Amino acid sequence: MSKYLPRLAPWRGRPILLMAQRHATTDCDKIAHTTVSMSRSLRKTTPAAYKILRKAVARLEQMICLGQRIRLSDKEQAANAVIMRVKKEEIKRGLLDPSKFSPGQHIFQTLKHIRKSPIFQLLKKMPKGGVLHAHDTALCSTEYLIELTYREHLWICTADEGCRAIAFRFSLEKPTIETLEPCNWEPMEEFRQRRGAENVRRYLQRRFSMYPFSNFKSNNEAWTHFMGIFMLLDGLLCYAPVWGDYYYNALQEFYEDGVQYLELRSVLPPLYCIGGEMLSIRDTVAIYQAEMERFKASHPDFIGSKLIYAPLRGVEPKVVEEYVKTAVELNKEFPNFMIGFDLVGQEELGRPLNDFVEPLLTMPEHIHFYFHAGETNWFGSPIDENLIDAILLGTKRIGHGYALTKHPLSMELCRLLDIAVEVCPVSNQVLQLGVDYRNHPAALMIAANVPIVISSDDPSFWRVAPLSHDFYFAFLGIAPMQADLRFLKCLALNSIKYSALKGKEQREAYSKWQKLWSKWIDDVIKNSK
Amino acid sequence: MSKYLPRLAPWRGRPILLMAQRHATTDCDKIAHTTVSMSRSLRKTTPAAYKILRKAVARLEQMICLGQRIRLSDKEQAANAVIMRVKKEEIKRGLLDPSKFSPGQHIFQTLKHIRKSPIFQLLKKMPKGGVLHAHDTALCSTEYLIELTYREHLWICTADEGCRAIAFRFSLEKPTIETLEPCNWEPMEEFRQRRGAENVRRYLQRRFSMYPFSNFKSNNEAWTHFMGIFMLLDGLLCYAPVWGDYYYNALQEFYEDGVQYLELRSVLPPLYCIGGEMLSIRDTVAIYQAEMERFKASHPDFIGSKLIYAPLRGVEPKVVEEYVKTAVELNKEFPNFMIGFDLVGQEELGRPLNDFVEPLLTMPEHIHFYFHAGETNWFGSPIDENLIDAILLGTKRIGHGYALTKHPLSMELCRLLDIAVEVCPVSNQVLQLGVDYRNHPAALMIAANVPIVISSDDPSFWRVAPLSHDFYFAFLGIAPMQADLRFLKCLALNSIKYSALKGKEQREAYSKWQKLWSKWIDDVIKNSK
Repeated sequence: MSKYLPRLAPWRGRPILLMAQRHATTDCDKIAHTTVSMSRSLRKTTPAAYKILRKAVARLEQMICLGQRIRLSDKEQAANAVIMRVKKEEIKRGLLDPSKFSPGQHIFQTLKHIRKSPIFQLLKKMPKGGVLHAHDTALCSTEYLIELTYREHLWICTADEGCRAIAFRFSLEKPTIETLEPCNWEPMEEFRQRRGAENVRRYLQRRFSMYPFSNFKSNNEAWTHFMGIFMLLDGLLCYAPVWGDYYYNALQEFYEDGVQYLELRSVLPPLYCIGGEMLSIRDTVAIYQAEMERFKASHPDFIGSKLIYAPLRGVEPKVVEEYVKTAVELNKEFPNFMIGFDLVGQEELGRPLNDFVEPLLTMPEHIHFYFHAGETNWFGSPIDENLIDAILLGTKRIGHGYALTKHPLSMELCRLLDIAVEVCPVSNQVLQLGVDYRNHPAALMIAANVPIVISSDDPSFWRVAPLSHDFYFAFLGIAPMQADLRFLKCLALNSIKYSALKGKEQREAYSKWQKLWSKWIDDVIKNSK
Repeated sequence: MSKYLPRLAPWRGRPILLMAQRHATTDCDKIAHTTVSMSRSLRKTTPAAYKILRKAVARLEQMICLGQRIRLSDKEQAANAVIMRVKKEEIKRGLLDPSKFSPGQHIFQTLKHIRKSPIFQLLKKMPKGGVLHAHDTALCSTEYLIELTYREHLWICTADEGCRAIAFRFSLEKPTIETLEPCNWEPMEEFRQRRGAENVRRYLQRRFSMYPFSNFKSNNEAWTHFMGIFMLLDGLLCYAPVWGDYYYNALQEFYEDGVQYLELRSVLPPLYCIGGEMLSIRDTVAIYQAEMERFKASHPDFIGSKLIYAPLRGVEPKVVEEYVKTAVELNKEFPNFMIGFDLVGQEELGRPLNDFVEPLLTMPEHIHFYFHAGETNWFGSPIDENLIDAILLGTKRIGHGYALTKHPLSMELCRLLDIAVEVCPVSNQVLQLGVDYRNHPAALMIAANVPIVISSDDPSFWRVAPLSHDFYFAFLGIAPMQADLRFLKCLALNSIKYSALKGKEQREAYSKWQKLWSKWIDDVIKNSK
């Protein structure tokens, strides 16, 4: 033991990683011919001493994990006991038959089953803080979208003798706008009468989501389908009167799912009016801000919502110059609402951030970056390197960061510079980055205490709850089995800490969240009796 | 820039990870109410200065990677140019259509296709050093196994009217041994005549491998099938005359695949003779050693082979006491051949190492541990913690270590204590830990320069080359796109460095490998012209 302990001793508490670093720079060639002969085992120790050291190491490893240093109140401890009892049962069933363990399967096969899970029921009611990564036209339930198709003056354009919906448009007369492919316009009412309301409902339910495709040939194919939904929804949602209603309804659905705050990304399309006149982008933002204020006024527990301007990345650098100008103008008019900037669209097919460095450096400091980066499994591609640019450009958070764990230096920079990773478990699965949640790279971020928040990206398209399903997979599938209420509480707190809320606003947010949290803790204890 | 650089400066070369460490111990509760307001972006810098820094960071990240510090000779650089040209073409095709990129698919769908890949052809001929993780009855090609079934005096026991093979046995008369389930014995010749030679060949080809099952309901189901093959092969291979031949043929097949050294794990079954008499375990080892010497004598470029005694882990601690005694006795008789100890069988269903600490601590220091650990995706399970026990018990290498990256402390210990991880890419896929090689956790070990070797585990059961397919996936699917000849050379060198070869033996091994390596480099250059 004596040979071993002197090597272990200096780690206590701190420089573990530094010592290892020495080895990281070893020249393979040079040491190839060296033999290390010192004893590295504890075989000369007693079993009792071994067990003490073993316990200490296992404990140290657990202590590093996200949230493990939070101290729970007596009440929280009581609630934790309830939560962990339920969690352990679900894991025990999974260990006996892994094919019945939801986080090992595709969400499209388990959606209904999960709704019945006691752990899901608990998480659904939990005040989860805010959603910091979600796209504005992929927020609402499919049911709400179908409701919208009953609004008056809606037209549908179909191809293949009515079998394929190509576009929607609100209009007093037959629309004359160009569509992505040739199709025939008819009033939605007539289409519904002709095809039968139930048939149309079923058809649209499928078209407004990624179902039933749990297995695309590649992530490119998944993305094509995914972008197709956005395009189909365009004419339905970009109608000025619908735009605000959709957002208001999203806030309502999120609120009911235990979400008190929403930072949404938007490409900010110009909206159209019934006669075809177009509004300006400024109006798009104004409608959002007004709806948010209206919602806040009638929901005193709601913290609020802010906007990240996130136009498409597949453009020439010159266009990004325009983006920056737009961002500055909008921020000037809506300084407390339009607060950040990002670029969206499939990273792998768009351009890397590196192409846009010049215009991006001109963005004023007070407009924060919240870049998508590393939403790929192509290790070492230029897209992969978006992580480096995002960090060096000063991003406040990283969208997805799926590839981050393959970049130990970037991962350490995130921890050092306190950059949170917006982890979107269900999105990563549906868009084919990985299948089994137990292999999701966020497990490593949790283990290494890299700041993360859990988000839902486009819950509408996978027909999940606004945030609860992503929490379910993070808690049951991604985090270690021991992860408990401290982990959940840390995630909720992180979503406020790493939001764009600052100063007084942030303090108010914490207290609004704390109020619901305390109530939930009471409920968990009460309902378990 | 001035605000940023002072923070970056101290990292140069070293304490990156330490600085980050400070944040790792942050109390979530405490800092939740703090706001960090310093500037963290480079927006006040010029694009030119940004690009210099950006390049430096990207370069630093690449430099940490496994093998990146190896300096190539002029000839090696010329060969590297050839290799990277071919590699880039294959990646380019994959980027255009990821569904055509083999490392994104299951090996059972791509096996034939890969054999035609120019990158695979190059790797096949490359002197890859040694295989340090392989099980002794899962080494040879299916073709060789079928050949063995033509040996005289072989009987087969079948169920379901001859449709299901249950057991084999060499015997002069109808065997009387007990089988796993009821079945009828008949001479292999008669069985073949009755069913048709080609039908039997096709049937056995399937039964001797995991094909065609690329999608089991769970990894437990895959393991059941997998263990079933071992059991079926028992009577065919544990016949004393076959035992030595099988091993000799394995050495031949491995040698032809560019493998000069083999450390094989064996449960060391007692062998049977034609009359049913049983030999001792000692004889099993003696046969191995004799065959190895015979092979070495006729293959002067071959380095050799050593044995790791690896009995089943699903036993009572008392049995492990017996294992230790056996290991000590065998090592006494075969001190330079039977050099190590491990426990095998599905980790998740067996017992954790922690249960066996007492007997394991009594193992003499000179018999090394080479434990399987972390071959699971159940994060935080007792099985997961096998990693900690393996390390504290002084394991020289870790078998699989699939879960290692979820344990930053254990991963650092591996780097610090120079414990190599035996990565078996194809095995992990077939046994259902993960599908897409691009998500294999070894990518993170490569990125963080944790020592690894590439092994094949049970190549017979997945019908792959003894090592080339695993190298193919490591090079093309797991490593970063930039990984080149330095990466490959480092893997080959690692397989000697982390082997049980020491001192003079190891120096000889390096020179035998170097001889073939130089020749291969010449060939790569010559053939490209």
